Amino acid sequence: MPSHSDIERTARAALRRAGVPPAQAALQTELLLEAELRGTASHGLLRLPRVIERITNGVTDPLATGLHYWAGEALLRVDGAQGLGPVVAMQALDAAAERLPRMGSVTVAIRNCDHLGMLAFYAEKMAARGIVLLGFTVSEALVHPWGGRRAMIGTNPIAIGVPAEPQPFVVDLATSEVSMGKIHDHANRGVPIPPGWALDAAGEPTTDATAAKAGAIAPFGAAKGYALGLGFELLVSALCASALGRDVRGTLDSDQPCNKGDVFILFSPQDGMAQQIGAWLDVLRHSPPADPAQPVRIPGDRAQQTRARRAGAEIALPADIWTQIRRLSGDTEPAEKEADHAP
Amino acid sequence: MPSHSDIERTARAALRRAGVPPAQAALQTELLLEAELRGTASHGLLRLPRVIERITNGVTDPLATGLHYWAGEALLRVDGAQGLGPVVAMQALDAAAERLPRMGSVTVAIRNCDHLGMLAFYAEKMAARGIVLLGFTVSEALVHPWGGRRAMIGTNPIAIGVPAEPQPFVVDLATSEVSMGKIHDHANRGVPIPPGWALDAAGEPTTDATAAKAGAIAPFGAAKGYALGLGFELLVSALCASALGRDVRGTLDSDQPCNKGDVFILFSPQDGMAQQIGAWLDVLRHSPPADPAQPVRIPGDRAQQTRARRAGAEIALPADIWTQIRRLSGDTEPAEKEADHAP
Repeated sequence: MPSHSDIERTARAALRRAGVPPAQAALQTELLLEAELRGTASHGLLRLPRVIERITNGVTDPLATGLHYWAGEALLRVDGAQGLGPVVAMQALDAAAERLPRMGSVTVAIRNCDHLGMLAFYAEKMAARGIVLLGFTVSEALVHPWGGRRAMIGTNPIAIGVPAEPQPFVVDLATSEVSMGKIHDHANRGVPIPPGWALDAAGEPTTDATAAKAGAIAPFGAAKGYALGLGFELLVSALCASALGRDVRGTLDSDQPCNKGDVFILFSPQDGMAQQIGAWLDVLRHSPPADPAQPVRIPGDRAQQTRARRAGAEIALPADIWTQIRRLSGDTEPAEKEADHAP
Repeated sequence: MPSHSDIERTARAALRRAGVPPAQAALQTELLLEAELRGTASHGLLRLPRVIERITNGVTDPLATGLHYWAGEALLRVDGAQGLGPVVAMQALDAAAERLPRMGSVTVAIRNCDHLGMLAFYAEKMAARGIVLLGFTVSEALVHPWGGRRAMIGTNPIAIGVPAEPQPFVVDLATSEVSMGKIHDHANRGVPIPPGWALDAAGEPTTDATAAKAGAIAPFGAAKGYALGLGFELLVSALCASALGRDVRGTLDSDQPCNKGDVFILFSPQDGMAQQIGAWLDVLRHSPPADPAQPVRIPGDRAQQTRARRAGAEIALPADIWTQIRRLSGDTEPAEKEADHAP
């Protein structure tokens, strides 16, 4: 298995070879590696080949960092100019964070930049600077309305980051019942999906993962989850003048300019709340569990534990992805050698 | 049945008699009547006796409108000074809306004011002024963590308001599976509750509504709904320095100062999005339904339809609530007469 630093070096090299400047290649790599470390492989290095393919196809600009326009003193509108998601987003968040002490709250509305990846990444970065963050982004229409049969709404994740001692509270969840990645994973393994996850292309409930790939995922939490996912998409679109519903392109394909929006809201918390919130989370963690063997979990705890366990260790990257990334980096060692690295 | 204007006049008189100035009495009454009109009786006039009892008990100040402090140019912190919820909230929203054209986004963080009532009310008010709104508030701990057995978290509603043509998109939902009001309603009628709604006082699943009253409500949408409800509560607490979890008081009782927080975020949308969003909602409304007899519903549509149907009509107020409100207003007609008004 390749080590953390093997992967880091190789991924950066692959991005640089595609024309991404060193600092931006490092940031994009950091984001994907963080997802691996936190156990969110769906947002990890398997995404790198598409990132590079989009550059090669000319729909992503490896040099763009976003054009900033302060539409109000506390509202930064960003034209991502088809730049890499984390590059445009971090540049915007840095500008917003700089203005935050004077404003108390600042909103960032981005459009026309590529997939942001795992939103928890940004929530953690901001929490480390003592900033409370709300983050929203939009995906291609993959989710059916509650009571509908067709994919009309994005998986539309929300992230909430709140500074807390000893570690920040970070939630990052999609408003779909599951990710499309998980359905693909079931299809690849030939395993059925549980009832309630998805509809087929005709809009009928299915447990056939392959049929579900051509259909629609359920919103999480029935009518309420549908209302939230739709509400978040409208909020993003209203602030960013970005694409809605079935018009969204560019986070799942390799040949369309990305036209979705992203919204971040940064807030200055009240003094001393990081301690109080940390203490309260501990009370919650030790409240009586339903199952004595399963203590009450705080959202984000599992990702933190996975991260702590994996940091410094080898990363169990699927062999084919590692092979692809090495090829993209220009590493021409024979494939036989690579197979030895497979888990 | 009393007419809309009978109720309005009587409720205002009851509030004025308790020392609430005319304009504030009108606003508090408007909020409660709006809830009745939209079919949300749980947030309607049944709340009025408690509002007045809190004033009588000295825990609500009928004259307070909130002390404003701009902690940043776009962050208004409000000490509610134990004022009435809608009075403090609308005063704060007005101040924020005034600054919005210059700021582009403004956050309001309120603490120490009474129950805000139905958040949709504020979202609609702001949408009518072309403002996008996110609203959060916190309640007493009534909800158990996913995997827990004890009520530790509020029902923590979120509201999303987005201007759209011909009518705004307004979502207002609690992060609990049901409201405690609905469980009380089942208990009063001697009807069991569905499995999955609640735990009893020992933390065991129950379908006995009376047992559930002493227990805990489930979060909506399992682990994801739990994560959101908790995340919203931490966000509010971090921005307002307000009470958390089991320390929250004053929205369900009549003798404790209210110590929860409320957060509103106001945004200026991009030009032309109200038309685009309205058109998209219509596409969604006409997308294929699961059940041909049940068109796809947009969240908020049902409340709007109920409102349109009820406006100008009589309101089916339970006789005992109408009797209470009349008594509080100083109307001393005999109870026999009142009984004639009962539905």
